[in-house]
Amino acid sequence: MSIVAVGSVAFDTIATPSGRAENILGGSCTYFSLAASYFAEVRIVAVVGEDFRAEHENVLKKRGIDTRGIERAKGKTFRWGGQYLDSLNEAKTDFTELNVFESFQPRIPKEYQDSEFLFLGNIHPSLQSAVRLELNGVRLTGGDTMNFWIQRTHNELIETLKVMNVLLINDTEAKMLAGERNLPRAAQKVLAMGPQALVIKHGEYGATIFFREGAFGIGHHPFRAPALPIEEVKDPTGAGDSFAGGFMGYIASQEQLNREVLKRALFYGGVMGSFAVERFGTERLQSLTREEIDARFQVFRELTHLE
Amino acid sequence: MSIVAVGSVAFDTIATPSGRAENILGGSCTYFSLAASYFAEVRIVAVVGEDFRAEHENVLKKRGIDTRGIERAKGKTFRWGGQYLDSLNEAKTDFTELNVFESFQPRIPKEYQDSEFLFLGNIHPSLQSAVRLELNGVRLTGGDTMNFWIQRTHNELIETLKVMNVLLINDTEAKMLAGERNLPRAAQKVLAMGPQALVIKHGEYGATIFFREGAFGIGHHPFRAPALPIEEVKDPTGAGDSFAGGFMGYIASQEQLNREVLKRALFYGGVMGSFAVERFGTERLQSLTREEIDARFQVFRELTHLE
Repeated sequence: MSIVAVGSVAFDTIATPSGRAENILGGSCTYFSLAASYFAEVRIVAVVGEDFRAEHENVLKKRGIDTRGIERAKGKTFRWGGQYLDSLNEAKTDFTELNVFESFQPRIPKEYQDSEFLFLGNIHPSLQSAVRLELNGVRLTGGDTMNFWIQRTHNELIETLKVMNVLLINDTEAKMLAGERNLPRAAQKVLAMGPQALVIKHGEYGATIFFREGAFGIGHHPFRAPALPIEEVKDPTGAGDSFAGGFMGYIASQEQLNREVLKRALFYGGVMGSFAVERFGTERLQSLTREEIDARFQVFRELTHLE
Repeated sequence: MSIVAVGSVAFDTIATPSGRAENILGGSCTYFSLAASYFAEVRIVAVVGEDFRAEHENVLKKRGIDTRGIERAKGKTFRWGGQYLDSLNEAKTDFTELNVFESFQPRIPKEYQDSEFLFLGNIHPSLQSAVRLELNGVRLTGGDTMNFWIQRTHNELIETLKVMNVLLINDTEAKMLAGERNLPRAAQKVLAMGPQALVIKHGEYGATIFFREGAFGIGHHPFRAPALPIEEVKDPTGAGDSFAGGFMGYIASQEQLNREVLKRALFYGGVMGSFAVERFGTERLQSLTREEIDARFQVFRELTHLE
């Protein structure tokens, strides 16, 4: 089945203790799409500038990603520069040049209209809502947001959350959105805002999924997928977006939409995040095989599996 | 089987967002012993002052804990005051009065000599080594340490690590001890210092056990036990010591000493830590049943268990 992915395509300049890379292909939508492409058909909606060349588009096309929704605008593509020299857990932003992304108005090609799944990347919540409204026939909508939107566009975000089935955010964002420091209580408050399920990403410690009462099945307990402790983190950029891609991609590959599928999806999210950080940029995500992915899924399972 | 536990008995004054308690029974050895007492026979070695009364000792005796190794010294018992008003993850120490603990010289009663297991609580590494030497017949020695000893008594600690089978520390301590920021690499460096297994506690995210090549069985991968997201954390004091108590207690309750036992022990550690924080001080650890403990073990298992 197919997923529409809306978000940013960017050129990143990244410094980590393992090295430095300039103007490499990045952006939340790029990481998401590459990760999801191992599971389902992915259709991108994004905007790029005149500096986005055929070689960049080919990275996506080689993975079978539908790029008809990539709009070419006059000007330069979104650029971001950041470093992880002090901590691999948090980027220090060197610069952000929004460029053509600043006036991004997502346009959905009519060929995308039959898509069953939608992922709303980290953009203005009003744009997220508009896309969701236009793709009214989707079975499940996942979405991301960030501190900036939680603080600056709180009311718009509250409206968007009403039409999101699954929200994927990190611990800090969940606590900020709920105005509550205790994580399970914060989760309950966020679920009351609309989503049927909330995925909270814990970085190197994995992720937890909380379900609204009765959503996707029965049961009271959350579910946690641990992350593999990774010896070689070359570049943490895109780990969260790759997590979302693995999560949504796996869901879109399944007929059923129940808790067991969402739990497995949480593991696949962790798997794709763990691959992403092994090389700079999207390098590792470009050349995986489904066999490698499933082998790591087994390692993740065994990581917490008692006989 | 029986475990000798060496460490501190203290009176704590604690403030958390849920309330405040003054001069309540605490100390690493107290939390450890109460948690371990649900699995095995526990024998304490500690020092207290003249303010330690029968009512305090009875808390331990009621759980069948052998208190013959508690030495009464002239003066006051170790007192600690701390608060968790800003963050439940880290205590802000208000005061530390070592009192009789300052000149603590652990003395092992001869009745303890046949003990099979030993837990060296967070005391000067030279004292840890001395106790280990005296109880030379134990099957397995677990131990704790902290930043203070890692920085101030590094050489003595290195010697102690050679006679510890399992070291239990947190992320920050592991990285500091190894001089390495990457956790799996830090773990390998610590294992090279002596221990056959290293348990790294991640607070609310659970714990990971790393094995030295060939120790306790075969396999290359670490194992991670997630922690339950807890809605009501009343008082985080003693969570790590309770974790160690559940971990060591479960090991001491088993005939075999292999990786599967250590993995289950890691889950039981998390279970006991999760109970400890539900009430102030040791209150919750005083009145559990094995049924409650095993029920939560199942919840923890299901938390990461895929069909």
